[in-house]
Amino acid sequence: MPESITLYTAKICPYAHRVELALEESKAEYTKYLIDLQNKPEWYAPKVNPASKVPAIAYGGPAVQPDQPSPESVKLAESLVLVEFVADLFPGSPLLPADPVKRAQARFFIEVVSSEHVPSWSNLLRTGTPEAVQAFLGGIEAIQSLLPAQGYALGEFSIADISVAPFLARAYVALENDIGAYEQGEATKILEALQQPRFARFQTYWAALQARPSFQATFDKEYVTEAFKKRLSAKQ
Amino acid sequence: MPESITLYTAKICPYAHRVELALEESKAEYTKYLIDLQNKPEWYAPKVNPASKVPAIAYGGPAVQPDQPSPESVKLAESLVLVEFVADLFPGSPLLPADPVKRAQARFFIEVVSSEHVPSWSNLLRTGTPEAVQAFLGGIEAIQSLLPAQGYALGEFSIADISVAPFLARAYVALENDIGAYEQGEATKILEALQQPRFARFQTYWAALQARPSFQATFDKEYVTEAFKKRLSAKQ
Repeated sequence: MPESITLYTAKICPYAHRVELALEESKAEYTKYLIDLQNKPEWYAPKVNPASKVPAIAYGGPAVQPDQPSPESVKLAESLVLVEFVADLFPGSPLLPADPVKRAQARFFIEVVSSEHVPSWSNLLRTGTPEAVQAFLGGIEAIQSLLPAQGYALGEFSIADISVAPFLARAYVALENDIGAYEQGEATKILEALQQPRFARFQTYWAALQARPSFQATFDKEYVTEAFKKRLSAKQ
Repeated sequence: MPESITLYTAKICPYAHRVELALEESKAEYTKYLIDLQNKPEWYAPKVNPASKVPAIAYGGPAVQPDQPSPESVKLAESLVLVEFVADLFPGSPLLPADPVKRAQARFFIEVVSSEHVPSWSNLLRTGTPEAVQAFLGGIEAIQSLLPAQGYALGEFSIADISVAPFLARAYVALENDIGAYEQGEATKILEALQQPRFARFQTYWAALQARPSFQATFDKEYVTEAFKKRLSAKQ
């Protein structure tokens, strides 16, 4: 029986979103505490996460208010570490299949997300060069190439899907609102490219991710859109 | 009962070394096939790992020679994915503790190795600037800061230790032989810095890693030294 879980998170953050998805999928009872990333509380770094980032989990210890974390709870950080932690706490959840081969395939998918999709999207937002556009589409292709004919990344839903959904969701918000360093109108071209037949399997996958109840319960699109407009458009 | 395991590896490669350590610690029966990274066999990329890197594992399928891999075996790649795969195949091995908190701490340690130690060492080898020296020592400090008072990264041996030992071993080979882009004599200064009292806990950790039987069974220091001299000194 897991002990008490307090998740420190932020709606805008794709890394933190991963852990919310993992907890939702596990039907975990947990306390969610939103950290304002632009104005972090003073106690957060010294008492929860020295790196001062979300997500972080305070696990166990006495019953306390989230903004008065106990030194007796264990503090854990890093999104993929936390997703595996939730999978370990709730072995009956759909997060990880039992078969070692399928588990390895899930983790390989996550490695591709981390090494190709995440940096290529971040670079696209920052630079918007034609090379960055191609690299971003290449990252989507790399994800698509790992998908089975139907369903999620492993067929059944798993941590593989959790690793990528929050980033795709924010990439779409940025593209649909023309947010990023690229020239005006360029985002529309990228969205059109993603509608081409060569990305057909990716599109059915992305539709399945969006339809997942845990995704709908954890992604506040309106909030993220406003936050992106405010924060990322400032430089334009 | 695990199926047949063929590991494609190379003595020089720290990533591949991780998987050898995991298999040794699990007392796994496996076939080891050395890939010459300077002259890879033609069949390797199409039949084993499209990324053409080591390590890779062919798992299951009919009994075949390693240089004639069967399309019926599952092919898996990426060192940390493979280390977790071995831990999943051999749940009785010392690779991962049962406690979810300790498992998360092992994976957090690995994250620090991946994000701080590995890139800072690679950068030191390539550039040798004073900043790179400081960053390398900072990476060692980051590792040290996670160590308990005694023993391995979690006290007991685990995948955390497996993630770092192969990189430390090769960093020492490079430093002891003055291999890298830094000026002549600079490596000796780094080695002296690592002997200072502020790295005392790191030194007892590094001694424990080197004394581990699985490390002694899998690290061919003489071979790696000659290979490093040949390959990495060429640019000087």
